[in-house]
Amino acid sequence: MELKYVGSGTRYSKAVIHGSTVYLAGNVAKDPGPTAAEQARMILSQIDDTLALCGIDKSRIMTATIVFADMRDFDAVNDVWDAWVLPDHLPTRTPIEAKLITPRHLVAMQITAAL
Amino acid sequence: MELKYVGSGTRYSKAVIHGSTVYLAGNVAKDPGPTAAEQARMILSQIDDTLALCGIDKSRIMTATIVFADMRDFDAVNDVWDAWVLPDHLPTRTPIEAKLITPRHLVAMQITAAL
Amino acid sequence: MELKYVGSGTRYSKAVIHGSTVYLAGNVAKDPGPTAAEQARMILSQIDDTLALCGIDKSRIMTATIVFADMRDFDAVNDVWDAWVLPDHLPTRTPIEAKLITPRHLVAMQITAAL
Repeated sequence: MELKYVGSGTRYSKAVIHGSTVYLAGNVAKDPGPTAAEQARMILSQIDDTLALCGIDKSRIMTATIVFADMRDFDAVNDVWDAWVLPDHLPTRTPIEAKLITPRHLVAMQITAAL
Repeated sequence: MELKYVGSGTRYSKAVIHGSTVYLAGNVAKDPGPTAAEQARMILSQIDDTLALCGIDKSRIMTATIVFADMRDFDAVNDVWDAWVLPDHLPTRTPIEAKLITPRHLVAMQITAAL
Repeated sequence: MELKYVGSGTRYSKAVIHGSTVYLAGNVAKDPGPTAAEQARMILSQIDDTLALCGIDKSRIMTATIVFADMRDFDAVNDVWDAWVLPDHLPTRTPIEAKLITPRHLVAMQITAAL
């Protein structure tokens, strides 16, 4: 079965499509604002864009791994998440605390979705 | 292909089924006991329950990501794991150390399974 | 749909195949050298071996989660990664910082691929 690469750069693709499964890259905010909430909003906007490139939207999200640089941002990020996610299409979630690519990056999200 | 949501709450679902793939949410112990071994037993019981809601059992597990708040609990959690898993149906594993949703939570597991 | 277990040991399998999806175990270097770059080379060699056991190669990789014990190894590991990955078959990536199974282990990689 052919793999479809979406938004390939020099090191990774933004998404890879296999059959009806869509694997998105882990996203940090491209232009990380000072708060985790702002970064979460930017990340979800980036994810919306990548899903659109794949021809789908957030109603097709199946799983989300959410990485917090500091778990004290859990509630602030969840407020952004809760406003974004569709109540009738709630994915599974796995929240963990881990440092990210730079100390400025406070949150990252990795999504798997379906066509 | 339709997505089936299992055990949806207000923020996430306990499982999402896509074709014959079953994505489970990351699980921490609902009522975290004082040791990682106790928490691992509770988590695996919760996972058994969610798998049953999906109509399958642990013989259908494909992957497990196991998050330890402290890698010194590795052996104690593995003893619980080894007693639970079926020798003829061993999933892949990815163990990492990361802090979890509260300091009381010592271990988390995320499972992907098949119908 | 039958699951196929590849390289099963006593605790986990090296890979599980479900339809045309291949889930690999998280890999750390079997014989961890002193630098993250050396370990990354060994891990990618181990992954090549496991992919071969599944009848595929690195052109079929869809996603990679890369765990750095210390994010300061990011560039050194990426040099190894960039030399290994095929420019026309770039998977998605999710890099995080987390401690691994022992302090000697500096990097881990978890791959999902397609038949």
